[in-house]
Amino acid sequence: MGKLFVVGIGPGKHDLITKRGLDAILSSDLICGYNKYIDLIDSLIGNKPTFSNGMKGEIERVKFALNKAKSGKTVSLVCGGDSSLYALASLVFELCEDFENIEIIPGITAALSVSARLGAPICEDLVILSLSDLLTPFEIIKKRVDAINIGDFVTAIYNPKSKKRDKYLKVVLESFYQQRGNLICGIVKNCERDNEIVKITKITDFDYDIVDMSTVVIVGNTKTYLKNGKMITPRGYLRKYGS
Amino acid sequence: MGKLFVVGIGPGKHDLITKRGLDAILSSDLICGYNKYIDLIDSLIGNKPTFSNGMKGEIERVKFALNKAKSGKTVSLVCGGDSSLYALASLVFELCEDFENIEIIPGITAALSVSARLGAPICEDLVILSLSDLLTPFEIIKKRVDAINIGDFVTAIYNPKSKKRDKYLKVVLESFYQQRGNLICGIVKNCERDNEIVKITKITDFDYDIVDMSTVVIVGNTKTYLKNGKMITPRGYLRKYGS
Repeated sequence: MGKLFVVGIGPGKHDLITKRGLDAILSSDLICGYNKYIDLIDSLIGNKPTFSNGMKGEIERVKFALNKAKSGKTVSLVCGGDSSLYALASLVFELCEDFENIEIIPGITAALSVSARLGAPICEDLVILSLSDLLTPFEIIKKRVDAINIGDFVTAIYNPKSKKRDKYLKVVLESFYQQRGNLICGIVKNCERDNEIVKITKITDFDYDIVDMSTVVIVGNTKTYLKNGKMITPRGYLRKYGS
Repeated sequence: MGKLFVVGIGPGKHDLITKRGLDAILSSDLICGYNKYIDLIDSLIGNKPTFSNGMKGEIERVKFALNKAKSGKTVSLVCGGDSSLYALASLVFELCEDFENIEIIPGITAALSVSARLGAPICEDLVILSLSDLLTPFEIIKKRVDAINIGDFVTAIYNPKSKKRDKYLKVVLESFYQQRGNLICGIVKNCERDNEIVKITKITDFDYDIVDMSTVVIVGNTKTYLKNGKMITPRGYLRKYGS
């Protein structure tokens, strides 16, 4: 058996990949990944062979990577953001029996790269929620939205909208508004990639048209505020210890 | 004005720092941070001057870093894990008015580095929760625990125990057990540092004694399972598309 690295490459720019992730990619005989992520690291891959496919090709992709590793190759299976969160590490473990030569290398997930672009909205207890109903029924997503309101969590929303599914985000923000008022929302499209857009708004002024699958929305909790164009959730140091 | 980088250094090992974070540290005139984090990157700092202090010294630390940056220095304020989540980015924005020369550099947060050591427990919708009541009253924490049960979220628990506060974790796990059954728990102490301990157990067998402030606990959702010693939350690809 060779080796399979499952590598989180972060949001896109190469300087947000960890050294461990970069070393894995550089030491691999073969790079597997979703088309878009392979494109993002094209210049790192050089002439190495790649295997890439599209959405809904995840099982085929993971099986291909596992088979190549079994045959003795060193393989990197690359994932956008982290390697596990809404990514492929768990499918790798589900599809194989011998874990000895599998290494999971974490990456910067979008919630954190997006938060850094907006200011500091993610500062304390947090929910990360995907609105994709491909793998999670919307009934469960709705229950989680109710839970978020109860806990007054800051929320990072992944996959807020796709072509087939354009109304869920509105339903979610409407629920937040009804239960917690006109919260501050940060929208980052193409974070740390070409054509990045950063926008901060309130729920009632939310611009649904700029949101797509390459957008992450962070909705603050009831303490989040806007200062000089940055979105800030106070951690509570000043309330506790004074300034 | 000089420049202030707020840098997330990840869990501890230097190869889990991003290149952007490393470059910031190497280009700085001065490094500020909590004692323990300064120690972790000691060999990267070399002979640069440092300012470090302990817990509850956060306001003093941030003010010192901001003042040095104002006076023209390039300063890195380093944080364990990410630079914003349970960290100092938001306090920086709270304590200054001119944001032009402040740059937030995200880092690998403990939930994700710990998840990678356990297998792939973090795979879909997630709550990150701190049990420290220094800045968040336990009443709010309890409400959030109720919300987690309603949403059946995978939960990463930071700061699970301190010397003064050793019963909250038991209260939380008891609530999870009552509402959702005997969930699988992953315990990682000193993740990616010397003396790392990785342990997977069920709530009823939970070993409270090994938990301390350098431990993160990940509690699965009702779908999380154990396979060959790894903790896995299925993403749902196999249920949806078959194997």
